Amino acid sequence: MMRQIACQPLTPAEFAPFGDVLQVGMGTARVINQGMAERFHDLARLDFGPGGRAGLSIFAAKPRSLPLQLDMVERHPDGSQAFIAMDDAPFLIVVAPDQGGIPGTPRAFISNGAQGVNFLRGTWHGVLTPLHPPGHFAVIDRIGDSPNLQEHWFTEPWLITA
Amino acid sequence: MMRQIACQPLTPAEFAPFGDVLQVGMGTARVINQGMAERFHDLARLDFGPGGRAGLSIFAAKPRSLPLQLDMVERHPDGSQAFIAMDDAPFLIVVAPDQGGIPGTPRAFISNGAQGVNFLRGTWHGVLTPLHPPGHFAVIDRIGDSPNLQEHWFTEPWLITA
Repeated sequence: MMRQIACQPLTPAEFAPFGDVLQVGMGTARVINQGMAERFHDLARLDFGPGGRAGLSIFAAKPRSLPLQLDMVERHPDGSQAFIAMDDAPFLIVVAPDQGGIPGTPRAFISNGAQGVNFLRGTWHGVLTPLHPPGHFAVIDRIGDSPNLQEHWFTEPWLITA
Repeated sequence: MMRQIACQPLTPAEFAPFGDVLQVGMGTARVINQGMAERFHDLARLDFGPGGRAGLSIFAAKPRSLPLQLDMVERHPDGSQAFIAMDDAPFLIVVAPDQGGIPGTPRAFISNGAQGVNFLRGTWHGVLTPLHPPGHFAVIDRIGDSPNLQEHWFTEPWLITA
């Protein structure tokens, strides 16, 4: 019997140790554009490390479905990584606390379709996992010369359940 | 009779003098995540100027409809500004070339629903104009202490037509 992890809804409070939830209503609201818009200001703890700079990329990922076998997680030691869903659809977010250089027990979250996330620098996380096509995301992360990637493959996989 | 500007489809080539179109297929593609995703790498000419840093905010803007009267454009002298549509819906992008410190004749573009834009630092542009609710956008722009805003109000407005 594979070890199981049940998904929970993505909320800023539960996700805070791992990063930021990017959604309307967070942070400080400023009315702009002659009252036609609100700006929820500076919501992500962006960090591009020494020798890095901010970059904006787009990821196109194949949709997956639950239950899903989790074989590995990865982390970026030199910078944060933010994902903005361009599709208005929920996606799966897996994170794990660090325990002496390896990931502890993972946690799984499902976004509500109107949320993005920013992983703090060095946070163990699963690869990008849309649950619906086309699976397009804007990504704000570090551009730099370092490898900036560590993978951890579990000796025994986890099963992520809805 | 008000001066009119007809919208055209947003394409990277037409938009290049004003900024970057953020869409799948641009830039250099890298296969990542064991073949499960493609990364279209570093698509935006981000520029946060002296004394600034990158920030990630969310804008919620009231939807408008065409034809639309354009009374003003603005620009940010100290940094670029990128808009990622979180709604999978087209929005209106108005830009204008600079002519000696004031905007020349504006141009109007409509995105295809799967596109974002990055305005180059100092580019005259209209305020954020979704055409459909809810009008939510992730915005990557400069966080800093300078005002970083210049507005130009047209003595004679323009009419943006579909």
